[in-house]
Amino acid sequence: MTNPVLVEVLRGGVVESRHRGSIVVIDADGGDVLSLGNVAAPVFPRSAIKAFQALPLLESGAADRFGLDDAAIALACSSHNGERRHVEVARRMLAACGCDEGCLECGPQPPEREADKAVLARMQGRPARIHNNCSGKHAGFICASVAMGVDPAGYARRGHPLMDAVIDAVCDMTGAPFSEDLCGTDGCSIPTFAVSLASIAHGFARFGTGTGLGPERAKAAARIRAAVAAEPFMVAGTGRFCTRAMTVLDRRAFVKTGAEGVFTVALPDEGLGMAIKIDDGAARASEVVTAAAIEAFLKLAGGEIADLVRPQILSRNKESVGEIRPSEALLKALGAS
Amino acid sequence: MTNPVLVEVLRGGVVESRHRGSIVVIDADGGDVLSLGNVAAPVFPRSAIKAFQALPLLESGAADRFGLDDAAIALACSSHNGERRHVEVARRMLAACGCDEGCLECGPQPPEREADKAVLARMQGRPARIHNNCSGKHAGFICASVAMGVDPAGYARRGHPLMDAVIDAVCDMTGAPFSEDLCGTDGCSIPTFAVSLASIAHGFARFGTGTGLGPERAKAAARIRAAVAAEPFMVAGTGRFCTRAMTVLDRRAFVKTGAEGVFTVALPDEGLGMAIKIDDGAARASEVVTAAAIEAFLKLAGGEIADLVRPQILSRNKESVGEIRPSEALLKALGAS
Repeated sequence: MTNPVLVEVLRGGVVESRHRGSIVVIDADGGDVLSLGNVAAPVFPRSAIKAFQALPLLESGAADRFGLDDAAIALACSSHNGERRHVEVARRMLAACGCDEGCLECGPQPPEREADKAVLARMQGRPARIHNNCSGKHAGFICASVAMGVDPAGYARRGHPLMDAVIDAVCDMTGAPFSEDLCGTDGCSIPTFAVSLASIAHGFARFGTGTGLGPERAKAAARIRAAVAAEPFMVAGTGRFCTRAMTVLDRRAFVKTGAEGVFTVALPDEGLGMAIKIDDGAARASEVVTAAAIEAFLKLAGGEIADLVRPQILSRNKESVGEIRPSEALLKALGAS
Repeated sequence: MTNPVLVEVLRGGVVESRHRGSIVVIDADGGDVLSLGNVAAPVFPRSAIKAFQALPLLESGAADRFGLDDAAIALACSSHNGERRHVEVARRMLAACGCDEGCLECGPQPPEREADKAVLARMQGRPARIHNNCSGKHAGFICASVAMGVDPAGYARRGHPLMDAVIDAVCDMTGAPFSEDLCGTDGCSIPTFAVSLASIAHGFARFGTGTGLGPERAKAAARIRAAVAAEPFMVAGTGRFCTRAMTVLDRRAFVKTGAEGVFTVALPDEGLGMAIKIDDGAARASEVVTAAAIEAFLKLAGGEIADLVRPQILSRNKESVGEIRPSEALLKALGAS
């Protein structure tokens, strides 16, 4: 099946580019609320399920034992910009469990923003593992390993008790089994395995409500949601979609981006989970679909996130020369739901 | 009509993302050699027609009058990385016609590569207009304005004699008229107007062969081709597709990227022009289609550009975790042509 166009990119009055994809909204009992495009095909969730991957950090007792605050817990499920505060909190997490940057197995990556790259260069620094957008997740993995009483070395690979616990948590949340045939390696070298978009969405409905989870897991999920709502900067950073959306929406929405055009949302009060995948992997499109869907399901009539629903395209002289917008097909489906 | 999938992105053994698009190959007489997807729809050619936009630089006599060498002429039709040598040549072009960086109307942009950003920051510099990937094109516009005897100020806007000459050259090469309704503004603030992919391809068949062009225009086109073949670094830079492809292929192929998934090719010896547009605007996909098409039409049996046809996807630890590849539909169409 060919997925519908969900997002259009305009320059002047002309549609310059188009993004196809799929979106599914599921309630906590697994009921199908909205489904557009193929939502049964396997999708690598990538970083969009970092909150599930952070569950062992809480469940192992590491967060309490090492005194991890909201900022650290939020960073453990972040794809951060590598800004000063992100780096500081990641270092603090590692120090708290007796480790350091050398224990990170995520590989080096430059900070996301030009300003932070320039600060690093002026200090004669080089992009390092600690700047990797996944360094908080990896620091959390290391804390959890130590709390579990196992040597963190090799934590990024299957067969290590920490990574096995992480995979178990993801399988439990999505209800989808781990499949060898659908397993790949993420950009930060941990395993990622493809599951249906519908099962990812169901996982986020359960993450937002606790429905169907054991008491410890439900408590861990609630603590992660509270931490991210309290520290939305830590989950992404300056100017980023997740930070901007959750700064406005607070506890009403938990949102998380993943590479290759994946996005996930939990709307706890509505008891809903969403998952989005853009066929071509474009983040600019997954963001617009996510914003439009949140606006519709939270019934935001005041334009609270209007700039995320229809972001402007600027020239290098900062003139608006176009915009990215939800397609008619998407708006119609959201309006009917 | 729905365009076919031309490119697949694999992670492990799983197709993670897909890119749809269209490709057309036209001979110098306008004959249709290959057509896949909708090639009649209007497409903004963006930077993929910088060679056409550079014709007035040659035809005005500016190149001779200001002593512009191959490096400068190549830079005038480049989307460059803002590396040291790109910046030096752009400054030299501006100085040659009595102007400076302050005359550039393209807006500021950071250099493309992390290493060049770091050098700039360590020198306490800031991203400026001269680092804009279009600064060579704009420097060429300024040189041509001076040679035409008009004040360069405002050269980026329609109504200025230079920009009117640039638009005339583009219309002449593509054979497509300028349409007010299909006009937008490019990232560097000059007008861009959408024409069919087929007319862009026909323009590059004529650019590569001179067929149907007046003698002065044919001479200018040949000089641009020779300059870019002699200085492929200037047209893009370290690690970039256009530079890598033309370093290997020399005068056998003239290739140029444009924003939003556009690519153009002239194969002078074969008398062919190509144009590619990826629906979603992804450069990683337009590059793979371009490489696969060049490999097919130049009958490259030795894997000369194999790494451009199937680029590897690396983790932050530099492990190969996937690849980008031409789709079966694309390979079949290329094989049949």
